[in-house]
Amino acid sequence: MSEHIAISELQRRLAAAEQGAQALGLGALLVSPGPDLRYLTGYEALPLERLTCLVLRTDGDPFMVVPELEVAAANASPVGELGLELVPWGETTDPFVMTAQRLSAPEAIAVDNHMWAEKTLRFHAAMPGVTQRLGNEVLSPLRMRKSAEEIEALAFAGAAIDSVHANMAQWLKVGRTEREVAADITAAIIDAGHAQMDFVIVGSGPNGASPHHEVSDRVIQAGEPVVIDIGGTTPAGYCSDETRMYSMGTPPVEFFEYYEVLKTAQWQAVQAVRPGIPCEDIDKVARDIIAEAGFGDLFIHRTGHGIGLETHEEPYIVAGNTTPMEVGFAFSIEPGIYRSGKDGARIEDIAVCGADGPILMNHRSRDLQIL
Amino acid sequence: MSEHIAISELQRRLAAAEQGAQALGLGALLVSPGPDLRYLTGYEALPLERLTCLVLRTDGDPFMVVPELEVAAANASPVGELGLELVPWGETTDPFVMTAQRLSAPEAIAVDNHMWAEKTLRFHAAMPGVTQRLGNEVLSPLRMRKSAEEIEALAFAGAAIDSVHANMAQWLKVGRTEREVAADITAAIIDAGHAQMDFVIVGSGPNGASPHHEVSDRVIQAGEPVVIDIGGTTPAGYCSDETRMYSMGTPPVEFFEYYEVLKTAQWQAVQAVRPGIPCEDIDKVARDIIAEAGFGDLFIHRTGHGIGLETHEEPYIVAGNTTPMEVGFAFSIEPGIYRSGKDGARIEDIAVCGADGPILMNHRSRDLQIL
Repeated sequence: MSEHIAISELQRRLAAAEQGAQALGLGALLVSPGPDLRYLTGYEALPLERLTCLVLRTDGDPFMVVPELEVAAANASPVGELGLELVPWGETTDPFVMTAQRLSAPEAIAVDNHMWAEKTLRFHAAMPGVTQRLGNEVLSPLRMRKSAEEIEALAFAGAAIDSVHANMAQWLKVGRTEREVAADITAAIIDAGHAQMDFVIVGSGPNGASPHHEVSDRVIQAGEPVVIDIGGTTPAGYCSDETRMYSMGTPPVEFFEYYEVLKTAQWQAVQAVRPGIPCEDIDKVARDIIAEAGFGDLFIHRTGHGIGLETHEEPYIVAGNTTPMEVGFAFSIEPGIYRSGKDGARIEDIAVCGADGPILMNHRSRDLQIL
Repeated sequence: MSEHIAISELQRRLAAAEQGAQALGLGALLVSPGPDLRYLTGYEALPLERLTCLVLRTDGDPFMVVPELEVAAANASPVGELGLELVPWGETTDPFVMTAQRLSAPEAIAVDNHMWAEKTLRFHAAMPGVTQRLGNEVLSPLRMRKSAEEIEALAFAGAAIDSVHANMAQWLKVGRTEREVAADITAAIIDAGHAQMDFVIVGSGPNGASPHHEVSDRVIQAGEPVVIDIGGTTPAGYCSDETRMYSMGTPPVEFFEYYEVLKTAQWQAVQAVRPGIPCEDIDKVARDIIAEAGFGDLFIHRTGHGIGLETHEEPYIVAGNTTPMEVGFAFSIEPGIYRSGKDGARIEDIAVCGADGPILMNHRSRDLQIL
């Protein structure tokens, strides 16, 4: 696994983004530090108060506005190799006005979805009357369709997080707190080849009933189901995210009943993945199975989210998203059933839509793991 | 050190923010996850695609829009104890429209400075014609003036990072790469009581001449100066940031010459801190000393930045910032001299403006440490 995306792929992405902006009638696409900038240029700049901004223009060559003291860092990134024009600004310049002056009065521009309000509104002030739109109109169609290199990167991430789940019995034990278990998992996520841990959810017993519970000082008890939902980012920047269910000895009988329903729902949703199916239909497959078994009210979230350079990105697998699946879409399939005050369960895999159906990035058994 | 700010202090902050918004003629202040939300409510929500947003209204009680599945997490934070009204929204609701409907047609609102464009522009679409302003107009005056509890938190952070610098000789050695040294420093930042490492700059020899260089695989050589600029965030959420200079044996003669100038400039700038002095004058004190010694062109950045719940926040110690210092302002004083292609030096302390002058959060010697 290379840590860097090939320059030729970055060039292809930049060209596609320029074409996309042109097709939408945008005079420019402004991209501040974050996943979009990393996608287009490989530059991992931190989002800070000083403006760094890639400007893709439909009437000229792209350039990047960079604080003077970050020119060396930008050039040391793939930005240097890409030969992008750098436009440095000093500590007492207004870089928003400077950027506006280099653009030829566009009617509309787009800003990246994560651009901070303090930058979005300053660009607005520097270009009054120019309509601001969201960069995902241009970039989501590109970022959703993963290239072969990106799918390889996601498979690497998936194998890494699989290897953490494979060793769960070492850490997940009755009498330990969720926080203690999480500390061990965090170290294991790094040891498995991730550059950073992104999240560790250890939801024991009733804590498993809150989908976004992270960890607590609760001591794990015998007979309890435990939700373990973990992920990290690899050196190449791609994310892992996998949920498996464990039980500390035999769980309550009712748990088995709904766990089997959940397992079927998750697996049928995975099997439904194919080019052309609307994203919302994958959600419906899982939801219908859970509802028919009488647990519909307990499945309180969407079925999944896209994944790539961000843990959560488009496409979302949710009612209302009629976008048809395409080859290369990568996303989670993670239905859950939550019994408030008692316990909960979720099973999650990352899948990529292949020409003939789903390609799974995770390969651990989806059976309840009784420890 | 408590990990949590007292509820009474959070209540005081919320009331002050409401008054500030009213004074500026704002109908509401919208605060998404990030440092402003943590400042006002103690809630450490991650910035994600689903909208979480505190709404402070000048014509009614505050409320917080929360994704249904994060209600439990919000209530487990100080938000529960504060008794803030939670307004949950489900996976297929438009939370921007929902928020707009609860506001009574304000003329202007403010959004927090870090709000993502995808949220800022959707609020704009949900409230057409409503002027959007930046939340720092309300919140910076509050966040800049640190309370006694916050100064204590910054002193705790300062002592923690001091203790890392105190042990630098254990890790910083000729023949090791910057990256190897940085890995040890990262572990030490956590061991010293930080909840997370924020940045580790190890700039050896010519890499010290790039102020925002982080680390590389460069092997540290004998006779080289090394810039070590490190910081982390404590469990209470407050940041440390301290730069000290090391040399691997005797550095070049010219280095000594400019290092002494830098040390004087940094110390005189620290000594200039007192209530009433404009922020830009602190910058000028350091800059004039460096310029008079003939190194003015090599001091290529501002003298400092505010610090608190963010490593970089207001006030900035930079030409053009005429804000008069007030008791409780907390900021870095970090002039530098950079000889491109050769070496560089920076000395950085965090200072708080006290009634009678500076109160330093860092206490390590500012002398060049020859290892």
